[in-house]
Amino acid sequence: MNAGNFAARLRSREQLIGYWVVLDAPVATERIARIGYDYVVLDGQHGLLGYQGLLTNLMAIDAGSSLRTPARAGAGASADADASARADAGTGTGTGTGTGAGTGAGVGSDARTGTVGLVRVEANNPTPIGRALDAGAAGVIVPLVDTAADAARAVAAARYPSPRNTNAAADASGTGTPAAADASGGSTPAAGMGGGVRSYGPMRSGLRIGPVPAEADAATVVLAMIETPQGLANVAEICATPGLDGIYVGPSDLCLSVGGRYPGDPEVADEFNAAIELIAKTARAAGVAAGIHTPDGETAQRYLAAGYTYATVSSDLTHLEEIATTHLETARSAG
Amino acid sequence: MNAGNFAARLRSREQLIGYWVVLDAPVATERIARIGYDYVVLDGQHGLLGYQGLLTNLMAIDAGSSLRTPARAGAGASADADASARADAGTGTGTGTGTGAGTGAGVGSDARTGTVGLVRVEANNPTPIGRALDAGAAGVIVPLVDTAADAARAVAAARYPSPRNTNAAADASGTGTPAAADASGGSTPAAGMGGGVRSYGPMRSGLRIGPVPAEADAATVVLAMIETPQGLANVAEICATPGLDGIYVGPSDLCLSVGGRYPGDPEVADEFNAAIELIAKTARAAGVAAGIHTPDGETAQRYLAAGYTYATVSSDLTHLEEIATTHLETARSAG
Amino acid sequence: MNAGNFAARLRSREQLIGYWVVLDAPVATERIARIGYDYVVLDGQHGLLGYQGLLTNLMAIDAGSSLRTPARAGAGASADADASARADAGTGTGTGTGTGAGTGAGVGSDARTGTVGLVRVEANNPTPIGRALDAGAAGVIVPLVDTAADAARAVAAARYPSPRNTNAAADASGTGTPAAADASGGSTPAAGMGGGVRSYGPMRSGLRIGPVPAEADAATVVLAMIETPQGLANVAEICATPGLDGIYVGPSDLCLSVGGRYPGDPEVADEFNAAIELIAKTARAAGVAAGIHTPDGETAQRYLAAGYTYATVSSDLTHLEEIATTHLETARSAG
Amino acid sequence: MNAGNFAARLRSREQLIGYWVVLDAPVATERIARIGYDYVVLDGQHGLLGYQGLLTNLMAIDAGSSLRTPARAGAGASADADASARADAGTGTGTGTGTGAGTGAGVGSDARTGTVGLVRVEANNPTPIGRALDAGAAGVIVPLVDTAADAARAVAAARYPSPRNTNAAADASGTGTPAAADASGGSTPAAGMGGGVRSYGPMRSGLRIGPVPAEADAATVVLAMIETPQGLANVAEICATPGLDGIYVGPSDLCLSVGGRYPGDPEVADEFNAAIELIAKTARAAGVAAGIHTPDGETAQRYLAAGYTYATVSSDLTHLEEIATTHLETARSAG
Amino acid sequence: MNAGNFAARLRSREQLIGYWVVLDAPVATERIARIGYDYVVLDGQHGLLGYQGLLTNLMAIDAGSSLRTPARAGAGASADADASARADAGTGTGTGTGTGAGTGAGVGSDARTGTVGLVRVEANNPTPIGRALDAGAAGVIVPLVDTAADAARAVAAARYPSPRNTNAAADASGTGTPAAADASGGSTPAAGMGGGVRSYGPMRSGLRIGPVPAEADAATVVLAMIETPQGLANVAEICATPGLDGIYVGPSDLCLSVGGRYPGDPEVADEFNAAIELIAKTARAAGVAAGIHTPDGETAQRYLAAGYTYATVSSDLTHLEEIATTHLETARSAG
Amino acid sequence: MNAGNFAARLRSREQLIGYWVVLDAPVATERIARIGYDYVVLDGQHGLLGYQGLLTNLMAIDAGSSLRTPARAGAGASADADASARADAGTGTGTGTGTGAGTGAGVGSDARTGTVGLVRVEANNPTPIGRALDAGAAGVIVPLVDTAADAARAVAAARYPSPRNTNAAADASGTGTPAAADASGGSTPAAGMGGGVRSYGPMRSGLRIGPVPAEADAATVVLAMIETPQGLANVAEICATPGLDGIYVGPSDLCLSVGGRYPGDPEVADEFNAAIELIAKTARAAGVAAGIHTPDGETAQRYLAAGYTYATVSSDLTHLEEIATTHLETARSAG
Repeated sequence: MNAGNFAARLRSREQLIGYWVVLDAPVATERIARIGYDYVVLDGQHGLLGYQGLLTNLMAIDAGSSLRTPARAGAGASADADASARADAGTGTGTGTGTGAGTGAGVGSDARTGTVGLVRVEANNPTPIGRALDAGAAGVIVPLVDTAADAARAVAAARYPSPRNTNAAADASGTGTPAAADASGGSTPAAGMGGGVRSYGPMRSGLRIGPVPAEADAATVVLAMIETPQGLANVAEICATPGLDGIYVGPSDLCLSVGGRYPGDPEVADEFNAAIELIAKTARAAGVAAGIHTPDGETAQRYLAAGYTYATVSSDLTHLEEIATTHLETARSAG
Repeated sequence: MNAGNFAARLRSREQLIGYWVVLDAPVATERIARIGYDYVVLDGQHGLLGYQGLLTNLMAIDAGSSLRTPARAGAGASADADASARADAGTGTGTGTGTGAGTGAGVGSDARTGTVGLVRVEANNPTPIGRALDAGAAGVIVPLVDTAADAARAVAAARYPSPRNTNAAADASGTGTPAAADASGGSTPAAGMGGGVRSYGPMRSGLRIGPVPAEADAATVVLAMIETPQGLANVAEICATPGLDGIYVGPSDLCLSVGGRYPGDPEVADEFNAAIELIAKTARAAGVAAGIHTPDGETAQRYLAAGYTYATVSSDLTHLEEIATTHLETARSAG
Repeated sequence: MNAGNFAARLRSREQLIGYWVVLDAPVATERIARIGYDYVVLDGQHGLLGYQGLLTNLMAIDAGSSLRTPARAGAGASADADASARADAGTGTGTGTGTGAGTGAGVGSDARTGTVGLVRVEANNPTPIGRALDAGAAGVIVPLVDTAADAARAVAAARYPSPRNTNAAADASGTGTPAAADASGGSTPAAGMGGGVRSYGPMRSGLRIGPVPAEADAATVVLAMIETPQGLANVAEICATPGLDGIYVGPSDLCLSVGGRYPGDPEVADEFNAAIELIAKTARAAGVAAGIHTPDGETAQRYLAAGYTYATVSSDLTHLEEIATTHLETARSAG
Repeated sequence: MNAGNFAARLRSREQLIGYWVVLDAPVATERIARIGYDYVVLDGQHGLLGYQGLLTNLMAIDAGSSLRTPARAGAGASADADASARADAGTGTGTGTGTGAGTGAGVGSDARTGTVGLVRVEANNPTPIGRALDAGAAGVIVPLVDTAADAARAVAAARYPSPRNTNAAADASGTGTPAAADASGGSTPAAGMGGGVRSYGPMRSGLRIGPVPAEADAATVVLAMIETPQGLANVAEICATPGLDGIYVGPSDLCLSVGGRYPGDPEVADEFNAAIELIAKTARAAGVAAGIHTPDGETAQRYLAAGYTYATVSSDLTHLEEIATTHLETARSAG
Repeated sequence: MNAGNFAARLRSREQLIGYWVVLDAPVATERIARIGYDYVVLDGQHGLLGYQGLLTNLMAIDAGSSLRTPARAGAGASADADASARADAGTGTGTGTGTGAGTGAGVGSDARTGTVGLVRVEANNPTPIGRALDAGAAGVIVPLVDTAADAARAVAAARYPSPRNTNAAADASGTGTPAAADASGGSTPAAGMGGGVRSYGPMRSGLRIGPVPAEADAATVVLAMIETPQGLANVAEICATPGLDGIYVGPSDLCLSVGGRYPGDPEVADEFNAAIELIAKTARAAGVAAGIHTPDGETAQRYLAAGYTYATVSSDLTHLEEIATTHLETARSAG
Repeated sequence: MNAGNFAARLRSREQLIGYWVVLDAPVATERIARIGYDYVVLDGQHGLLGYQGLLTNLMAIDAGSSLRTPARAGAGASADADASARADAGTGTGTGTGTGAGTGAGVGSDARTGTVGLVRVEANNPTPIGRALDAGAAGVIVPLVDTAADAARAVAAARYPSPRNTNAAADASGTGTPAAADASGGSTPAAGMGGGVRSYGPMRSGLRIGPVPAEADAATVVLAMIETPQGLANVAEICATPGLDGIYVGPSDLCLSVGGRYPGDPEVADEFNAAIELIAKTARAAGVAAGIHTPDGETAQRYLAAGYTYATVSSDLTHLEEIATTHLETARSAG
């Protein structure tokens, strides 16, 4: 799918599965991008990728994605009925209903399949967010979001200024771009778009998700990580942030945040599970996508069954270490 | 193990297991190097590593290797009784018996465990061979060896000139370096050492396997790939090349060489298996190490059981693709 | 010209023409640097250059610049009569007159021609500003300056602490460095120098623009981008920031800031042109340099004729795409 | 078009237009690849690309190519009537017909549009040829081909061994170069395929042009540069080399080869033009593609009109220098 | 020594000697790491290392460190009697005793020798601090610390959240910075540990200093640079920051801070020396390590004798320039 | 000095002093290039530089060289009276006189000072030689030259074809190597120029040493290493090779070549010294430059006094290791 299509699917809480890359190994990333994942995340925070690594691996994802055949793309995805919840909320505040869906439909009518690249940025800061998007990412996963204000800052960093915000004159033409939806001030998926502070310079992204700011905004997702004690406490407010497309659970930090001595600490399993459940429920109520980081396909499948709408299997480095260990043990075993 | 210890073990046909790296991803290579493999090969021919990649990943192997604990190191290795066959052959030609073992013992008495780095060089050419060794490789796997003359060229490229060869005066002191063994003209493992054409400049390797040429030669292995029709036809002569430490089967090319339309072509399975068996038997008779490239630990285990003395599991790129595919299928399956 | 000479010319509002680089292609940058542009800007915000790219391309500019022949250098430059306006303002506030000119003259008496490198930094943040300058940039273009406080922060980040500020004791010696000028508190070009927060470590720059802080400050320009609604509203205050050498218009973002739906939106042409004119007039009144980003030489020429004192033609990436497209069309046309 | 389609079009002497890249600037290469050129050549001989540069830019071409719309692709191409001449000759000589054509047709029936990447390798040597192809090139341009034997070596380096050559009893001669084995196979486009010495390891190329050797061979073009006095003298024999898909004129070196004191020397214009004409005529007679290096679209168009079947516009570096110079002159001119 | 051992020695004010690297030259860094320095600092602020440079050179330090022999390690180190002062103070304030010491003892009992890598981060910002530690640094030197609040931010950025802080009811205030929580924990070396904001993802560091947060914290040192006028004024408060392991004098900036016109300005020698003395005395009183940057071994030796507990010789770039200059002068001199 | 000037000075056997770089650390290389050495050699054989490293460091040399002041340049150089010997010999053999000298004089009259970059290429092979020169090297040092034929191949690889050789009827033999053609041209410095096989594409070099082949040849030096037993035996014939500008002793390999067990082996000191003396004498008789590799300025000074005309101090890596070791020892010593 292209970036617009991906954004629409994510916003409609369709089930999506991704892969998490920490290695700066573009040929491996390219191969993973053709396997059929809906998205691949490049980890700019804890991963081993500097700016050049992000740029080259985003290119690798595009190269690999072009090799996917339609048959492999997201066959199992199912629209989440709760997506309407958010549109309803939008209706409550005004006239903006349908626009988000409309945008999605418009973009989605281009049914080209493919895998998009996301970046987990190094910090909730406009500079790395802008650079990841200019380099071609279809969206950002923003770490360490503690409050709704943090989430709003992340959203603003990923969106261009809205004509409405800067030049009060009408913008009446209504081209059907997200900006039109903004006119209603509603909280449809596109409602928070525009009004951002992203600086203009879409070096790579302009070729793929369009150089027109409103169109770029419509095709760009912003996902806030819930992983700190404060973020957990404020999850409802964060989910309600206009323009935020979803939240994303970082289980390692979340486990520490509920008192674990280390990621996976069994002594806090109950607290951890309660937090996981709460986050999914809150996102569902808010009508935003609920994502989670997982170590393997089985865990991803389990979380998707339990209410999460997207899940990422992680990571190339740990999987490689794991499979290389297994092969060594097998090779050393008696025949 | 250090490079000298590795060379001694390989020459005595001890069973060794390695891993094959094609990605230029040093942090992954470092992790693999600490798992407990006896060696890691960096593929400079078909792999995605240029010169800088080889250099950095050899450093990564050294960094990762230093994390290995003694308990993990090659516990299952067993000396091959046939190693004596080659020493016997050496005896036949003169007085050189035992020197190879002696050298090995000397080096081996330093029982430090660890994983060494090898390089499959891009070609049988002194330049890439010299650069791989200067960069810190404990040995080279040389592709496309067709004849004993090819093998001799590979050996010469990896060994420094011998004092004997260049300065006819006695060199009578006999320090116990390989050069002394050469005096006998025999075919002990060290017989071909010295007399090479390697140029002096051990930038990284000098720190690890010694700056003294004869010592460096003793700690450096040269392995010839058997993969072409000519190489298969000449395998006995190749194995008999003085100074060659072992042969290494490249099954993909070998399969094409016995008439396969593609690697693994079942129509030539008989021819392929016959070739595999012949090569192992020939190496055993010659007393040199017999290695083979395998896709997984199970195959490696099988070949080791069938007479090969070292086997490499390959590769990071394909294993990563494989495990990522499996995780996606699992994630998409019904719970 | 060397960095000091460039700073003097820019501060005296001489007409200067630059080129804008977004590609990390040092050999191309080197060639552009010898064509005869007064400066080359490396884009660290939207460009495709990470830290290593900035470093290597600054070196490329120095290498290319050394190939320029005197005859090619800035032949068309004409001193702007309004430069005196600023010096006058300086006189009005005290005794600082002439210092800026004096510094410029001293540096300028070294009439070596050449092209200097500037960096458009990724953010108004001391870290990237300091690293660009340490790497050898003759100045920085700082994006997204909204207020005079923002501009002052940019200036401080690019200047070393002043002795006066830190050690109240006299500093009476008056070496004629910019710091002496600071004593007057005036608004001469050097008035804002010193008093900064730049940390000392001029790895590359020390060789070219001097390791002595005051001299480095004198040879370093700080240019604030006017591109946001707030920046436009505050342009007069920004221009009045002590130590700021000039402003720089980012037309794409500025167009969005006046309500455009996309850069170049014809519906806001009047607002856009009014803003452009206002900015030039304000800079002229303040006696600081007025620069602008342009897509081609013709536009640059037009803005210079209309009151801008420096203009940058942008960019290598778009020009290359453009010329390659033209060649393809020509090649495909009937002969 | 994909690699197979490109190969089929080139072999049928359809008119193709390419672009020549010497800069290691992947984002620029990606943009050029989407403009609509039939191919982009990465210059590994005189260009500024090392191995990593070739690898990344081949990936960039694939990424950019996926953005091309069908409408832009090669509309002006016209099949060359002489292509049949070669097929006839092949039929005439015997038993080789069918296989190559069949494979080619199969691949060619996939009419996906796009731009392929070629590499002008650094030397006529199996190592750089194999590495360029493994890295994903759809073909190689081989410099400094002096003789038919040189051309045969280039072909062999780019083609996998043929089952027929290696398994069949017929390969009795021992030396059996591919050319010898091919003698029976005629001169159909695919006739020289197989029988090569390429080693198996299609890291990136396997995903795009198929891991099956015969299919990869069918989708891989080999082009010999005519640029030396000897190459010019032997052009007919070179064109007749089985498996060679075309020749490519290097005008700079060719001009020196006909006695020019520098490329473009007017004193040897007659000799140069005669050589150019001779080469085109010879290629046409042999039924192979005739390509030429040109500085601009106009020259490319002229050569295509004059009998060349493909032409490359060169290069990013010189075009960028040229356009930047023009912009500076315009900016400095009076308005 | 491993990272835990290094931290214990630094905290006990043992004398340690380090080397300062600004070049991105991993093979040189590897060699320096085996010479026998207690630590090597990679300069991420003024040095020529981007993120990839830090990562690769940290790996180089680990590779080089593994070559050190026990005999060479820190022979001259002597425990500082004042280290007990701090532990006492910790005991006096309450319940925090034991944990830090226990962890330290456990780690310290592993007396493996070696050289650890530190990073002088580009700014007092959680992102570069976290990335340096994830990449394998045993600690960070944080520039431009002006206040105790700055120091507390640096400490928090380098430490994982403490279970106590996040799970316990006591964290009721909401804002609850780690420092507040630590107030009860005393000022033992480990007292400030935990309670940080470091995000979990120890890609390289996890292999060496343990993936368990509390253990990683125990093995990670945080050092605050004293170099600004404010920092100098607040040095006692900074030294008292819970969790801070030491301070580090940056003489160049410190000299400017006491009014020097340039680093080493003789006119402020008295002020400079007074500051140097004050800082050492303050650190000693607080029981934290006192470090300083020096140009050569002689100066390092002098400062160690004068009360500093660790000193870094700087740098590869200036030393290389210096020795190359000396060799040239010698070579040009008459024999 | 520029490349032409350097070539002229080297050919006239003026005394020149260089520095040897093995690290890929461009900022260090840039600094070394401004110290005042006549040349800097980048080691592409044993050094840690791949192609990108050579390219970037050649640029660094040009950047650093532009900072040299005239006063520092080569003050001590003294023309060698024997230079006339060679010119005489050249005159004696025929018609080739004048061109080389004329070109040299023209270039030399530009007395701009500076440091040029040379490359010790990885092998005596036209590909790395051509790439080093295209990347901007002023000359090549070619390793492992055994015979005059080897030297002639090196010369041919570095020189463009001569109009005379390619256009003249005389080239009737067909094989016509340059050496044959040169036979008539005598042994003036320029006699061997032209007649080479260098392919045209001076990407960086064209800007500095001219795009006209004959001019480029005149400004390009070719130096053959004498380091093997064969090279030593054939040193007179090698020195007599037309177009060869000098020889260069590699003492490490030469010591092994005279029977040393390791570089510097005292047991072969007499043989070594005899060889050193013989080589210098032979070069002097042949009128070519005699260079040698040395570890320090003192040794360089000694060899220059003993008849060598240029000497290189080596290397950045060992000097850095040495000075860092000294600083550590000093720091650890009692005060």
